[in-house]
Amino acid sequence: MLARPCALAVAAEVRVSAGLEGVVAGRSSISWVGGETSDLVYRGFDVRELVPGVPYESVAHLLLLGEPPEADPSPVLTEALARARTPSAGALAGTDALDPKLPPLEALRTILSLLGDGSWGYPPRLEDGYRLIAQSPVLLTRFVRRARGLPAVPPRPELGHVANYLHTLHGREAAPQQVAALEAYFDLLADHGMNASTFVLRIAISTHSDLASAATGALGTLKGPLHGGAPSRVLEMLRAIGRPEAAERWIAERLARGELLYGFGHRAYKSEDPRGLLFHEIARRVAAPERVELAETVERVGLAALRAAHPTARIFANVEFYSAVVLDAIGLPPELFTPTFALARTTGWTAHALEQASDNRLIRPDVEYVGPPKGRRWPRPRRDR
Amino acid sequence: MLARPCALAVAAEVRVSAGLEGVVAGRSSISWVGGETSDLVYRGFDVRELVPGVPYESVAHLLLLGEPPEADPSPVLTEALARARTPSAGALAGTDALDPKLPPLEALRTILSLLGDGSWGYPPRLEDGYRLIAQSPVLLTRFVRRARGLPAVPPRPELGHVANYLHTLHGREAAPQQVAALEAYFDLLADHGMNASTFVLRIAISTHSDLASAATGALGTLKGPLHGGAPSRVLEMLRAIGRPEAAERWIAERLARGELLYGFGHRAYKSEDPRGLLFHEIARRVAAPERVELAETVERVGLAALRAAHPTARIFANVEFYSAVVLDAIGLPPELFTPTFALARTTGWTAHALEQASDNRLIRPDVEYVGPPKGRRWPRPRRDR
Repeated sequence: MLARPCALAVAAEVRVSAGLEGVVAGRSSISWVGGETSDLVYRGFDVRELVPGVPYESVAHLLLLGEPPEADPSPVLTEALARARTPSAGALAGTDALDPKLPPLEALRTILSLLGDGSWGYPPRLEDGYRLIAQSPVLLTRFVRRARGLPAVPPRPELGHVANYLHTLHGREAAPQQVAALEAYFDLLADHGMNASTFVLRIAISTHSDLASAATGALGTLKGPLHGGAPSRVLEMLRAIGRPEAAERWIAERLARGELLYGFGHRAYKSEDPRGLLFHEIARRVAAPERVELAETVERVGLAALRAAHPTARIFANVEFYSAVVLDAIGLPPELFTPTFALARTTGWTAHALEQASDNRLIRPDVEYVGPPKGRRWPRPRRDR
Repeated sequence: MLARPCALAVAAEVRVSAGLEGVVAGRSSISWVGGETSDLVYRGFDVRELVPGVPYESVAHLLLLGEPPEADPSPVLTEALARARTPSAGALAGTDALDPKLPPLEALRTILSLLGDGSWGYPPRLEDGYRLIAQSPVLLTRFVRRARGLPAVPPRPELGHVANYLHTLHGREAAPQQVAALEAYFDLLADHGMNASTFVLRIAISTHSDLASAATGALGTLKGPLHGGAPSRVLEMLRAIGRPEAAERWIAERLARGELLYGFGHRAYKSEDPRGLLFHEIARRVAAPERVELAETVERVGLAALRAAHPTARIFANVEFYSAVVLDAIGLPPELFTPTFALARTTGWTAHALEQASDNRLIRPDVEYVGPPKGRRWPRPRRDR
């Protein structure tokens, strides 16, 4: 779909774009999404140059501080995240009072809000970001384990950020291959240009709100299935199909009912999502061969069906498709897919908050009023005249 | 300040506007802000036609359902809000676990998040809005009273929405004049075009997120002092000045130090804010005469000083100035000024969420990447090759 046709209002330069497609809302030096050329670039580094193999602490260092660290994993980020990892008593108490039946994504929104205790001000500081990045997984895994009737697992200082997340979730050290796969996931989801949640975060910062508030708002936006809320549905779809031989019929029936296929299409990419290609490779390393074969068949059959139905559209599998296979192979339950995406993105959010505050201007667009003209009279006498 | 100069990118139609000033982000029939003509219009009704005297339930009816109710206060909204007023056990438990030392605005962000329990879906329903509007004040006053060591006050079904808020806050029925003044406040703050928090809410809804998530994000944006977070500072300023005779010297010294005066200027209004004029009238009814005289003197002296310093700017007292005097006269503590603004705005937020979902398109602007060009090489071998 194209943006709505331009309409003149107020001044000749003003145009209506309901989705802001084609509207450049600002400048950023953090990441570049090349939707025509299958590019995702973090401060000049193609993600293919980083993944797999560059630790998340080093990617976070790059995104937050602008340049690669002096060693891998970044000593600065390793130390900063370890130091910031202990939540306040208030955040712990608030997390422990959450209804254990809450979906983890709902819980995580409240957890991010609980981090904001009145001490996070404007402008946002790097230290606020370290708290956000380091404490979110600690509190989320604490909630998830309590919901399962399990005790919290204390972080282990010698483990990296991603390994610690798996450790505090499962209560045991994860296999190196699994940590490497999840590290690639964290690296690849750490930032992605001016997506909807990052835009929300920057708007919040632009009003001089704090990083905890802004990140809470970003999470509430990432939660939407059109943004970050659908990867678990890819897995449900793969599970429902079950075997490669069933793909053709299942997909045809589903499309005939007018229902969606999950894991295909992305507004920013008119070519292969580079993250999807990397996740496909990683899936081949960590997932069971029959799972990979099923996914590859569903990708092939799904794309053929979608392209037949929309001959002019440029449709590809998106980042959710093979990342769902990867996260499943690592042993993450589907209800943690989107929360894990959000944990990875806390780094990009922090970088954008710092960048927004460094050259701030209140973000407040105009709107075209299309309601009744002014001058209507209230139908009854007002009680206070 | 003007928007940054236009820059060409991607296509000739694309322009950079860091604050989106002059960019029309969509259409709305809910409210119109006439910044040049001192207008605020709700679905065709000038707010001067509504305030004082139209009950909040009726204004909410107008904003949510599009037309005035058949009687005042709206029977539909009165019944719907009364029915929706009881929070879930989970939201109550979460609220009661909040650190009592939290500023109420931080608490309210978490309270809005706690409302989202997994049952709020997409598209948002009117019933979700009723829960948001009705339960937020119940939980906020419960938190505030617990922080003061006081028991919660159950709502009284025969009281209107605004009277109930004062009742559950103070534990006694408020004087009719105070309820009328706060009702005017709720009416006037119920909606205001495409402000930053409403824009955030619409972005969240555009990703198919839910109303609780979207409203939580909106609150995190409204929290910023450039949006809704500064009215208590107006009161602090008035208290610091103390007497009308002290205004001239206090203001001159403050401006000489390069510090801000609070309560002046608004991005959308290049003329008098109509709400400010109405609050001035209401302040004359409910505030002590010496308070009003002090405020009027500070307004006059402050405007003269600001206009002398910025001869070409069109500066006026904004909505925060006299609304702070009104809220103070009603007996609201300053730390509840912005939370009370947010409670009033839950109606507008709901109306915008419903409108966004009725003709939705993902809101995702572009960004101009100004970082290093792609092609940088990571300085060390990656550990996973």
